[in-house]
Amino acid sequence: MAVYTEVTDEDLARFLGQYDIGQALSCKGIAEGVENSNYLLQTEQGSFILTLYEKRVNPDDLPFFISLMRHLADRGIPCPTPVPGQDGEALRELCGRPAAIISFLTGMSPRRISVNHCAGVGAALGDMHKAGADFPVQRRNSLTVGDWRPLFEACDGRADEICPGLNDEISQELDIIERSWPASGGISDVPMGVIHADLFPDNIFFISNSLSGIIDFYFACTDFLAYDIAICLNAWCFEQDRSFNVTKARRLLQSYCEHRPLNEEERALLPLFARGSAMRFLLTRLYDWLNQPEGALVRPKDPMEYVRKLRFHRGISGPGDYGL
Amino acid sequence: MAVYTEVTDEDLARFLGQYDIGQALSCKGIAEGVENSNYLLQTEQGSFILTLYEKRVNPDDLPFFISLMRHLADRGIPCPTPVPGQDGEALRELCGRPAAIISFLTGMSPRRISVNHCAGVGAALGDMHKAGADFPVQRRNSLTVGDWRPLFEACDGRADEICPGLNDEISQELDIIERSWPASGGISDVPMGVIHADLFPDNIFFISNSLSGIIDFYFACTDFLAYDIAICLNAWCFEQDRSFNVTKARRLLQSYCEHRPLNEEERALLPLFARGSAMRFLLTRLYDWLNQPEGALVRPKDPMEYVRKLRFHRGISGPGDYGL
Repeated sequence: MAVYTEVTDEDLARFLGQYDIGQALSCKGIAEGVENSNYLLQTEQGSFILTLYEKRVNPDDLPFFISLMRHLADRGIPCPTPVPGQDGEALRELCGRPAAIISFLTGMSPRRISVNHCAGVGAALGDMHKAGADFPVQRRNSLTVGDWRPLFEACDGRADEICPGLNDEISQELDIIERSWPASGGISDVPMGVIHADLFPDNIFFISNSLSGIIDFYFACTDFLAYDIAICLNAWCFEQDRSFNVTKARRLLQSYCEHRPLNEEERALLPLFARGSAMRFLLTRLYDWLNQPEGALVRPKDPMEYVRKLRFHRGISGPGDYGL
Repeated sequence: MAVYTEVTDEDLARFLGQYDIGQALSCKGIAEGVENSNYLLQTEQGSFILTLYEKRVNPDDLPFFISLMRHLADRGIPCPTPVPGQDGEALRELCGRPAAIISFLTGMSPRRISVNHCAGVGAALGDMHKAGADFPVQRRNSLTVGDWRPLFEACDGRADEICPGLNDEISQELDIIERSWPASGGISDVPMGVIHADLFPDNIFFISNSLSGIIDFYFACTDFLAYDIAICLNAWCFEQDRSFNVTKARRLLQSYCEHRPLNEEERALLPLFARGSAMRFLLTRLYDWLNQPEGALVRPKDPMEYVRKLRFHRGISGPGDYGL
């Protein structure tokens, strides 16, 4: 939740002068996205989201995100469409920050996840991976296997502060994951492409059980497509009591496969990718937990949730345990 | 800026079942109002504001606020209209808190105040005071003259921490204001009625220099109407460099008088009311400044701004100095 940069009425009027979407009727800072300043903008032509990119987003990555959203939206994926200014440019500057207006998507993030939600997520993810197949730009995943050990080392051996023995557990797990992870060179049969890389319930909207929107593409990158599925297994298929719901996983995977079939390599790698993605969220949460800014109002997310997920994936006997 | 209470998709669907405004298409927490949780709610029937009243608002006062907004809106004042549920009730409960849906007003708060804005404020305030004349419910102003000394005493003599000598200055000023303040018994000729009591630029919306909305009636109460004008002189007619802009004040007062003429008593009392309202905002800011919660992200507003305004009003020779 954040609005970091305040946009005044005059700033906005000047900014909208570069677009053909009419004048502003309303502009409210909204509590959406923790990285950027977001406004719900209503103009004479409808509702939009105005985003000012704050310092946690690398400005060099913005053209990738903007062109990816346009590419996917053009192919029918229900994601935000960047709105171009009169000069055709969607990425502009406002209040000294990179800024863009994107289309507004209706719907709400589900709180209590149903099997139907999981089916919707699987289908949308499959469609998105297919739609991204001919996207010509690449962006390295800055939070993939090779980045996890440096992140772990930046935690300075302090994982045991959260749970005794956790430091060794992560270290040994990292050894295994690093050794097993497939090379991304292109010689393998593991399909790569554009992945969302952060497809949590916060980033998906539904209206009456129908998926209406996928938002927040600011972790999107080029990586194994099946790794994106593994992130979703972690994000959508565990219950509040931490138990894995195989019915949800089966529906998510089945729906995905109806839209984009998985090959044998991908199926075989799913348990490893699930371990890897659990490690990725465990490590970022661990780092944030150990490095809370003094007096911060937002309590960081619990790393132990992902320790438990990691242990679950370590214990399974094969992809069949996910309902595949 | 605040969203204190999170409303889930299921909570909202159940809540909207009590209304006839269609199902939710979107619901975003907005950074508006520091006291309550506010959501911009879009349904099949348009845009609304969903407010959950948090603990700083006394629940006993809510029927006053809700019925006042309806009264004023019915008389053409551009203020939020409470939306009744199917049972006719506008004040309901959501997530364990009192909650209401009110109409959405377009427009934006002006940042750089122009003379035209001040004219709009004066006119709208005059109209609002007239429209409130037959409002049958009363609510005591809990931040009026008799409440200032207890608030000052709660600051524990610490005003000098902000500016040496400030403690004595406030104390002497309070003596004068308390002695001079008119009685509100009804024997005086000073008209009383419903006042907004917090009509700062944040609470007024404009579209292209036309006033489009007045919001945040949660300080509204029964008090001298001219005191509400004095609050506006303080809120709208000082420049960034702290100087008083008599052109703005003249236009605000002239516009007001075109909509509701001031009597002689009110004109004569304007300097005192301006001192009093400067004292009111000085004291609440002073208290908040001295009692900042540890680690709070929001820096409280500067009390010295109102010390300077108070000094200005103390130094004027009469209502003519406001352009009257």
